[in-house]
Amino acid sequence: MQFSSKLIENAINEFAKLPGIGKKTALRLVLHLVKQNVQEVNLFSHTIAKMRNEIKFCKKCYNVSDTEVCDICNNTIRKQNYICVVETIRDVIAIENTQQFNGLYHVLGGIISPLDGIGPDQLTIDSLVQRIKDEEIEEVIFALNPNIQGDTTIYYIGRKLKDVQVKITTIARGIAFGGELEYADELTLAKSINNRIAVENYITTS
Amino acid sequence: MQFSSKLIENAINEFAKLPGIGKKTALRLVLHLVKQNVQEVNLFSHTIAKMRNEIKFCKKCYNVSDTEVCDICNNTIRKQNYICVVETIRDVIAIENTQQFNGLYHVLGGIISPLDGIGPDQLTIDSLVQRIKDEEIEEVIFALNPNIQGDTTIYYIGRKLKDVQVKITTIARGIAFGGELEYADELTLAKSINNRIAVENYITTS
Repeated sequence: MQFSSKLIENAINEFAKLPGIGKKTALRLVLHLVKQNVQEVNLFSHTIAKMRNEIKFCKKCYNVSDTEVCDICNNTIRKQNYICVVETIRDVIAIENTQQFNGLYHVLGGIISPLDGIGPDQLTIDSLVQRIKDEEIEEVIFALNPNIQGDTTIYYIGRKLKDVQVKITTIARGIAFGGELEYADELTLAKSINNRIAVENYITTS
Repeated sequence: MQFSSKLIENAINEFAKLPGIGKKTALRLVLHLVKQNVQEVNLFSHTIAKMRNEIKFCKKCYNVSDTEVCDICNNTIRKQNYICVVETIRDVIAIENTQQFNGLYHVLGGIISPLDGIGPDQLTIDSLVQRIKDEEIEEVIFALNPNIQGDTTIYYIGRKLKDVQVKITTIARGIAFGGELEYADELTLAKSINNRIAVENYITTS
């Protein structure tokens, strides 16, 4: 695409660097901003830059935070001896939105995946293990995506914790709510049979 | 959605103001920017703000421009006595991309639409008429969307130009290339029959 304005072209190129935004969508966004008044666009631009410049990562759990230690870690109402281990910040947001978990988090920043060249050293595993040892954690709940890499990561961290007195659990894998047995893959169905739960437990937790 | 960071929340809200971007997409974009380095995000933010602060509208044709008069109007290789009248800046870009038109443009900034409260005074019609009178324009080509409002606008401007010696045309309406007769609406099909063109013309222009 050709544009008569270099300013427009540069702005389109910047938007098109964002994931899922192609040149046509970028053009639509830029022409939208051209129609907005200058103050609004400056606010947009300033808010984004401020976010990136001032955002911190919580030094305890590695979640995004406005302060050195995040609001979740600082919240004394939450159970300080439960840690939910997740891959990314997105997962923290997803679990927080369920309003079902009232402990703390630990963001690994990825998952062990030799094929992608990601080993344990690039993740925050050492700091997690240290935290569990130092803070008298009762239970570590793994909430990783159910795949080989997730299971490898759980196994690796589990071994690091074998001498530590702590309960290690993982979120349930099974047939998704609203899903149909017929269309579930064999592995999921097999796991959901092996890890079956007593109906009385099921009713009290649902 | 709840976020542990006000900075993230504000940035998401700004992105979500853009057309076609909901909260979930905004979250994805913001978390992407968190992963980029500060310089890149500052460049993004600065480019957008600079675009909006410095963008001008060409004082001849009202297209977006980096200068007082846009590159298209300033380009002496283009035919200065052909004006293509369009509704928006997007239409200029769309026609430029066809590389079939080598004249100048005039952006109306909208279309006469009494239902939406848009009358001729809110558009750049007076300046178009003045331009046609002053600049010895040979042909005015209307490239408006084929609907009632487009036709009304053509009719209105046509009447303003009734004493001016100028050829007035409109882009062809007909069956879209690749379209099927069977599925074309009656009005389009009727127009395409009434405005049929000699095959020898069709072959030389396609």
